[in-house]
Amino acid sequence: MERIPILKMGDFLLVTIQVDLYDQLAENLETDLVNSVKKYESKGVLIDISSVSIIDSFMGRILGNIGMMSKIMGAESVIVGMQPAVAITLVELGLTLTGVSTALNVEKGMDLLRSKIELSDNQSDYDDYDDDTE
Amino acid sequence: MERIPILKMGDFLLVTIQVDLYDQLAENLETDLVNSVKKYESKGVLIDISSVSIIDSFMGRILGNIGMMSKIMGAESVIVGMQPAVAITLVELGLTLTGVSTALNVEKGMDLLRSKIELSDNQSDYDDYDDDTE
Repeated sequence: MERIPILKMGDFLLVTIQVDLYDQLAENLETDLVNSVKKYESKGVLIDISSVSIIDSFMGRILGNIGMMSKIMGAESVIVGMQPAVAITLVELGLTLTGVSTALNVEKGMDLLRSKIELSDNQSDYDDYDDDTE
Repeated sequence: MERIPILKMGDFLLVTIQVDLYDQLAENLETDLVNSVKKYESKGVLIDISSVSIIDSFMGRILGNIGMMSKIMGAESVIVGMQPAVAITLVELGLTLTGVSTALNVEKGMDLLRSKIELSDNQSDYDDYDDDTE
């Protein structure tokens, strides 16, 4: 199976990573994800890594890339379900997943996404207000 | 990675099947799923098979089992995201997935689950009413 499925759930996209990411698979995932964000005008991306028990610098970089790409496309992203051992490994390896938010599980991740989106909506409302008064 | 992750989303559970199911993996999935239904008191189970491109009688039986087990535990189940080729294969093989509902994608699957749950809630309300009047 060559592609990781991307599930649309309302304004969000959900990706569950269950297999080891190799170059082509990771590249396909990145392409599919930005295309889906555009297609569905998604506001947030949830990446579930609860079945990932081993993480390396490649995987860390891919997760970071996905976060940045989503951000550029106007969608927030949250990584959910990280196993404790993975968190330990990340810190010990010095991989900090810069710019990527995390949450304990899918539900908390959705809440976090909603609050982020609300915040950025309010921010843009405020910007609009500024423009009007100038 | 030996287990397929089960994601809790409100009253529902979501399972994305991305890898070929072999005996042990399928057995683990069945056990984990019924345990999760109990633990979270879930009302519905969504099984996404959008990355499954080849289906055989074993997989068909597992999907049927999951449906029946969920039903016994009091949760409805819906299979979502079936590829057209898989649907063709199922019919040609004579595998009818008895007792399992299907929907085109996760969102339609959730709608179907909600309507099924509402229906069964109404049904039990009606049963209650009957009991009261007797």
